[in-house]
Amino acid sequence: MASTVIKGGTVVTHDLSYPADVLIEGGRIADIGPDLRGDEVLDATGCLVMPGGIDPHTHLEMPFMGTYSSDDFESGTRAALAGGTTMVVDFVLPGQGQGLLDGLQMWHNKSGRANCDYSYHMAVTWWGEQVWNDIPKVLDQGITTFKHFMAYKGALMVNDDELFASFRRLGELGGIALVHAENGDVVAELQRKLLEEGNRGPEAHAYSRPPQVEGEATNRAIMIADMAGVPLYVVHVSSEDAHEAIRRARAGGKRVWGEPLIQHLTLDDSEYRHPDWDHAARRVMSPPFRDRKHQDSLWAGLQSGSLSVVATDHCAFTTEQKRFGLNDFTKIPNGTGGLEDRMPMLWTHGVATGRLTPNEFVAVTSTNIAKILGCYPRKGAVMVGADADLVVWDPEKTKTITAQAQQSAIDYNVFEGHEVKGLPRFTLTRGFVAIHDGEVRTREGHGQFVARDRAQPVAKALSTWKELTAPRPVTRTGVPASGV
Amino acid sequence: MASTVIKGGTVVTHDLSYPADVLIEGGRIADIGPDLRGDEVLDATGCLVMPGGIDPHTHLEMPFMGTYSSDDFESGTRAALAGGTTMVVDFVLPGQGQGLLDGLQMWHNKSGRANCDYSYHMAVTWWGEQVWNDIPKVLDQGITTFKHFMAYKGALMVNDDELFASFRRLGELGGIALVHAENGDVVAELQRKLLEEGNRGPEAHAYSRPPQVEGEATNRAIMIADMAGVPLYVVHVSSEDAHEAIRRARAGGKRVWGEPLIQHLTLDDSEYRHPDWDHAARRVMSPPFRDRKHQDSLWAGLQSGSLSVVATDHCAFTTEQKRFGLNDFTKIPNGTGGLEDRMPMLWTHGVATGRLTPNEFVAVTSTNIAKILGCYPRKGAVMVGADADLVVWDPEKTKTITAQAQQSAIDYNVFEGHEVKGLPRFTLTRGFVAIHDGEVRTREGHGQFVARDRAQPVAKALSTWKELTAPRPVTRTGVPASGV
Amino acid sequence: MASTVIKGGTVVTHDLSYPADVLIEGGRIADIGPDLRGDEVLDATGCLVMPGGIDPHTHLEMPFMGTYSSDDFESGTRAALAGGTTMVVDFVLPGQGQGLLDGLQMWHNKSGRANCDYSYHMAVTWWGEQVWNDIPKVLDQGITTFKHFMAYKGALMVNDDELFASFRRLGELGGIALVHAENGDVVAELQRKLLEEGNRGPEAHAYSRPPQVEGEATNRAIMIADMAGVPLYVVHVSSEDAHEAIRRARAGGKRVWGEPLIQHLTLDDSEYRHPDWDHAARRVMSPPFRDRKHQDSLWAGLQSGSLSVVATDHCAFTTEQKRFGLNDFTKIPNGTGGLEDRMPMLWTHGVATGRLTPNEFVAVTSTNIAKILGCYPRKGAVMVGADADLVVWDPEKTKTITAQAQQSAIDYNVFEGHEVKGLPRFTLTRGFVAIHDGEVRTREGHGQFVARDRAQPVAKALSTWKELTAPRPVTRTGVPASGV
Amino acid sequence: MASTVIKGGTVVTHDLSYPADVLIEGGRIADIGPDLRGDEVLDATGCLVMPGGIDPHTHLEMPFMGTYSSDDFESGTRAALAGGTTMVVDFVLPGQGQGLLDGLQMWHNKSGRANCDYSYHMAVTWWGEQVWNDIPKVLDQGITTFKHFMAYKGALMVNDDELFASFRRLGELGGIALVHAENGDVVAELQRKLLEEGNRGPEAHAYSRPPQVEGEATNRAIMIADMAGVPLYVVHVSSEDAHEAIRRARAGGKRVWGEPLIQHLTLDDSEYRHPDWDHAARRVMSPPFRDRKHQDSLWAGLQSGSLSVVATDHCAFTTEQKRFGLNDFTKIPNGTGGLEDRMPMLWTHGVATGRLTPNEFVAVTSTNIAKILGCYPRKGAVMVGADADLVVWDPEKTKTITAQAQQSAIDYNVFEGHEVKGLPRFTLTRGFVAIHDGEVRTREGHGQFVARDRAQPVAKALSTWKELTAPRPVTRTGVPASGV
Repeated sequence: MASTVIKGGTVVTHDLSYPADVLIEGGRIADIGPDLRGDEVLDATGCLVMPGGIDPHTHLEMPFMGTYSSDDFESGTRAALAGGTTMVVDFVLPGQGQGLLDGLQMWHNKSGRANCDYSYHMAVTWWGEQVWNDIPKVLDQGITTFKHFMAYKGALMVNDDELFASFRRLGELGGIALVHAENGDVVAELQRKLLEEGNRGPEAHAYSRPPQVEGEATNRAIMIADMAGVPLYVVHVSSEDAHEAIRRARAGGKRVWGEPLIQHLTLDDSEYRHPDWDHAARRVMSPPFRDRKHQDSLWAGLQSGSLSVVATDHCAFTTEQKRFGLNDFTKIPNGTGGLEDRMPMLWTHGVATGRLTPNEFVAVTSTNIAKILGCYPRKGAVMVGADADLVVWDPEKTKTITAQAQQSAIDYNVFEGHEVKGLPRFTLTRGFVAIHDGEVRTREGHGQFVARDRAQPVAKALSTWKELTAPRPVTRTGVPASGV
Repeated sequence: MASTVIKGGTVVTHDLSYPADVLIEGGRIADIGPDLRGDEVLDATGCLVMPGGIDPHTHLEMPFMGTYSSDDFESGTRAALAGGTTMVVDFVLPGQGQGLLDGLQMWHNKSGRANCDYSYHMAVTWWGEQVWNDIPKVLDQGITTFKHFMAYKGALMVNDDELFASFRRLGELGGIALVHAENGDVVAELQRKLLEEGNRGPEAHAYSRPPQVEGEATNRAIMIADMAGVPLYVVHVSSEDAHEAIRRARAGGKRVWGEPLIQHLTLDDSEYRHPDWDHAARRVMSPPFRDRKHQDSLWAGLQSGSLSVVATDHCAFTTEQKRFGLNDFTKIPNGTGGLEDRMPMLWTHGVATGRLTPNEFVAVTSTNIAKILGCYPRKGAVMVGADADLVVWDPEKTKTITAQAQQSAIDYNVFEGHEVKGLPRFTLTRGFVAIHDGEVRTREGHGQFVARDRAQPVAKALSTWKELTAPRPVTRTGVPASGV
Repeated sequence: MASTVIKGGTVVTHDLSYPADVLIEGGRIADIGPDLRGDEVLDATGCLVMPGGIDPHTHLEMPFMGTYSSDDFESGTRAALAGGTTMVVDFVLPGQGQGLLDGLQMWHNKSGRANCDYSYHMAVTWWGEQVWNDIPKVLDQGITTFKHFMAYKGALMVNDDELFASFRRLGELGGIALVHAENGDVVAELQRKLLEEGNRGPEAHAYSRPPQVEGEATNRAIMIADMAGVPLYVVHVSSEDAHEAIRRARAGGKRVWGEPLIQHLTLDDSEYRHPDWDHAARRVMSPPFRDRKHQDSLWAGLQSGSLSVVATDHCAFTTEQKRFGLNDFTKIPNGTGGLEDRMPMLWTHGVATGRLTPNEFVAVTSTNIAKILGCYPRKGAVMVGADADLVVWDPEKTKTITAQAQQSAIDYNVFEGHEVKGLPRFTLTRGFVAIHDGEVRTREGHGQFVARDRAQPVAKALSTWKELTAPRPVTRTGVPASGV
Repeated sequence: MASTVIKGGTVVTHDLSYPADVLIEGGRIADIGPDLRGDEVLDATGCLVMPGGIDPHTHLEMPFMGTYSSDDFESGTRAALAGGTTMVVDFVLPGQGQGLLDGLQMWHNKSGRANCDYSYHMAVTWWGEQVWNDIPKVLDQGITTFKHFMAYKGALMVNDDELFASFRRLGELGGIALVHAENGDVVAELQRKLLEEGNRGPEAHAYSRPPQVEGEATNRAIMIADMAGVPLYVVHVSSEDAHEAIRRARAGGKRVWGEPLIQHLTLDDSEYRHPDWDHAARRVMSPPFRDRKHQDSLWAGLQSGSLSVVATDHCAFTTEQKRFGLNDFTKIPNGTGGLEDRMPMLWTHGVATGRLTPNEFVAVTSTNIAKILGCYPRKGAVMVGADADLVVWDPEKTKTITAQAQQSAIDYNVFEGHEVKGLPRFTLTRGFVAIHDGEVRTREGHGQFVARDRAQPVAKALSTWKELTAPRPVTRTGVPASGV
């Protein structure tokens, strides 16, 4: 078996930076240290050797109105690798009444072409005995994270009693609850009102999902998770309103994590006021982009640790698909790209500016989520024995982002024209060099499903505390003989 | 027509304190000044002449499981007057599918025996075209405040889309939205869980309604009111969690008021751990009593103005009625008394300690709510032309609260044994001296319905602002010829 | 004695709006009601009859570098009346080592030409036995409010131990503490650093006084006032940082008021980046203008009551005087105008937009400060017996603000070119019609000194609470016979 | 050279838990993995192998009123090792006018007898050119952290301009600022006032240092550090007030860490009301113990990451020394013990209850501070090449804390009678087994000084950001030809 050595770089983890070579054998890291030798040598001079990125929020080949989001597991993971990301986590979305295992099988059917490793979150899109029964089976298959939509009324949305029931089940079994936090009832009413009043363009998408509805739902999900005794992970935190709810919960000792997206960190709501309809519609996603105040809040959250993970919610619809909503903003498919751009954009706007340290960059793009998912240190680490999912990062390399040069299947890029400084020289997926100095050498089908462990330390600690502080009956000396 | 003069006291309003006599003719204040004369003279030496209290939160003769809460409009308003309160606002509770005007008629049928003036809030307990149509008619009858229950699932509770629809309707018509803010879904789940786990006593009532579920619902109601463009009044704010949501909203310029109850200000949750079942069950109300941290928060809210009104939620059930829930805390009828004790307890713990000024006492017991209700300065004022609803307050008078000596029809008092200093010497309802130096001279049927004005200044200002900042379509230069 | 009647208007107080005529005799309000008659009739049709404004923050004819601020008590109060303001409160600034009564005499010498009534705050610019002795004498002369500068190191600034000593003295005697809250040590260091680094222009004034140094000092003053047991009034609150400290204090029940200026509410820091040096220098004041985030915070504070009073800090320096600092921003005299523009600007941006109700407008421009000062209801009220300091406000009247048309002595206006809607038709100072439908008829020397009452209700309540909760020795059973 | 192997345990780092043996050679970790062999075998069955604790806050043999705190480097480090702590950081306290290097030499003279490794923080107790010159020399000796006292007026305290100057110097050189945050001016005034009023006992110590004065100073230090551009570490955070300031700063992206003490986490202010004078006086330290609200805040801070490090402020005075203050609480020497108890107490109340995970325990007792100090991963890690400072932790081992059985030289223990579960089986200092299953085998003089690295990643990132956002002059087109 041939070995590979990454020579001359500086290993950068979430924890530490130090000069070392990295030796890879059999898809795993075999050694880390000075003067290592291997069959293939990758020159990392001037570069940082970091854990490959993990994007925990993608929707590849997602069914939508009889068609699919345009990036599938092949093009999506190719884009990921090109940007230094070596693992994606996609969402299994069972239909109403469909069993969770059935849904899972549908996703397994799609992911065979993946170029890098992947895992799934399971969505709880309805509630019933079958779901209750399926949850432990899904956990047993290494899927420990369960997504709940508080928006998309009439489709994916679940109600508060369903949230409570599902969260409680997960708390007992060592799972983790995820939420898409927007108040679906209010969004639906605002959509109706806006259309009534003649607001039909893409800007009305943003009007219909103001920060307040996100903040409210985040706050509600946190309360329900607290009552149910389960750790909570809030996806695509886009606003100070939601972030404030998370900070307040954490300040009370609650176990809550927040995930901003690279889009919300770097783009703002002026995009929806662009005079070109296509430009605006291509940026339609939920939650929508926000203003500077919210961006500042998200960056500060990454700095202070109140937000933990940077993702993309990559869900790519072509311009043609976007035009479904030409006369009615509620019909514009929600989603943008970002898989290829997440890491360069975050480095450029985060590390190069001094907002984040290189170690914090690794933490929020890879290690933190690996721990939450329950696959650390197999993933998210530069450690002997870990999977050789690595990116050799050249902090001086620059490019201008364009749709033309991208891997993604769609015909535009929301970061079109943005300059980035900091790009992969090499990206390795389990030791295979998929990106080689700008050249894409991905191998379709190379990716494997990553099963994960439940009951991570935080979940166990929370269970202990909840048991210790559980309500207990009062012993009474005076009780009436009987009621009425 | 005989006149009455209150001589030798100090007039104390929410605004000002000054020595003056008060002359009353025809049920109204005819003059205020030095050396006034009248047919009947009430000696106010050493006393403060204040607007009579207004308790905006009572449930008199409320239907419940085939019976009624034990204080009706006669005994309830007698208790009110004995404690210096000269107006109560009760809640009309239409049944599911019942029209609002029908419900209103039922309440009019009960209130004829009232000893002091009264008004109603209308509860929106379901939603439909009839309710939508009835709201303006109810407003036209002088009922401007509409209560919504976010708890009591399967009974009074309404959902978020119903809240939005009702709030929007009220916003357009100049009404004010009220909420009982607890997450009814989660309360129902916690009740079930607690019963499953063997928590059946009155303490489990408190366990099932922790501060978090109140804070969450308060936060949600605020967001919905903001989206709908209506001022919001949150009844029985009992916790820092709810108060924090209100403070945060106000800090954002939102028009939100909070109403703590005298019980939550002065009693705590240790009551539910009392070894005597009856003792604990008699204190069962929603929200339940909280601990010291929450009490401190409520007092500070009154001091700083983030909370506006002190009420009672007077809903008196006898011990016999309480015992409906002997083996199941969810069946203990919710409610306690307080109408007679609100003002002496608040004076004792608020003004005598220096937490509140006498003017602030008047504001939170009377004037603030009169303004919010839309009946100021007819009520809540010591002003020429105002109704002579007055209390002559003796700050040196003391008593020990006992059930035996109270006016309320129930057989206990949650403040049993508490010493108060500061009590009415006289209470006048539209000029009639109903309480005369401890002697109860109330006149059954004297009370009249108070119709109120909609579109108070705050509601008008809010409408202006919402119109000014309403979403508007973007003008586009580039729009594709057609969609797909 | 001739009487005047204001006919056909709507009386608007901080409390209430109602149609009524107002009769004035002997400089006081003699009657309020329908169909009043008087010798002179002022037509208030379509107008609001409000308490004249009180500006509690002016520096008229203030000594500065061998010269004086350009508006003296004559031109300053003329500008005030032209804008609807009928009382100003100026600051007595004793020199280092100068007795407070000496300082007071100097100010009395200047104020004789005033066109409207006035009072003073006393500044505590140093600390010693004489100051300690003088404070009660100053209080006895009706000056109840004492200003402390936490900035202007080496000149007016006092240290924390001096603040504590002064605050404690005031707390015992029923006075109120005022602070200019900026950290003077840090401002001085930042000034030095900026000059070192070549930042010499007016924009560096803003750099040297960032919101953080204001927030810090506000927070510190609040703590010291709390320890000393005195109510605190924070002048010129310009930032969310300071406002947050005030909100947090109030949320803890502390007695703290905040005063934003009309400039900070309506102008922003882009003024300092104006390419014209004079333009920027004319806006130099402390604290400097802030950005939109801070403005939004201030408006919300007025809406929610966490901020109480809108003032101007009127301290007018001519362009020529500003140019003292042409090569060194620290030498640009600090101050701008605003006396004439405060009320129209606040009405235009506050009431006309729906941010404030007309009653709230009266509260923040007049009544609230009258209460804090201890001169309510003589001032700040439309009440029989009150001084007839009134403005008849025409909400439809418009103008464009220009330096050319203003009363102030300076050669520019920071609001130059701003359109306002809402202006005085008449302004009356103790019954004298000083402004008559745009015509200035002020009478030099008409103004009188207003002595005020100490120990207002809030100060008394605070003393009671502090006494109740004062530290008390523990009774010990085990005490060693002796130490070492 | 003999090797040691720790067999059969679970390695627990701040990051990860996994079963492995640990091989030690030459005082360093030589290997980690299954089935390792060595000359000496330590049985870790059932145990956790963790980085030894680091206590960054001790005062050993600290000069005080002609005598010294009673634990010196020998007994202090013996106590440390007995409790699982393998490194202490003491404070060099130069006298007024004394050079920093002189002060350092005095501390080097005392530390020779240490049983475990140690480092120093340098205190900046005065400011002048010599200090400015000495700072880089101290940094060059591997001391990167500089303590500033905002309390102890007339002794150690420095003023705001001195803080700014020192912080700025440190920011430029890559150091880190530490503060003892209490407002020394106000403490001094409160002490005087309390004594005047007859409050002379140890409880008055707590009265004189309420949470407010700590919160204020923390807030002030944060602002100054922000202006100066240096990371800030706040020692002995004892209150919600201080913690709130830290959280608020972090929420704004500021680089601030907080250090609660084990005493404040587990003991409360009722100790000062103990009827026995000695009991109360032995607990006198600054800041004093607080109540439950503050404790809850500190625990939540450890859970959420807004507080980073648990320390002791070990400064042991005997009962005899405490009695210096028998008649005057201000003369009671400030300080308690805790070195031996920190880790067992934190495990018992933190990990065993579920508040903290085992990994978080390691983070807050060792790894976080090693990173801040700049000696990670030499210290604070279980990693090949790291110093073999290890504790083999038996989570089932119990004891009752008593003064009689402790290593510390003092005659009492503030945790007397507390039960702990979770204790060291072995403690190793650079490979030497100093604690062997309860037996103390420490070696006097074994300890070595640990030099540390400046300009850790956070400091470098902050510098980059501050440079990027530094104030810059505006380019002007209109500048007057000259000033006046």
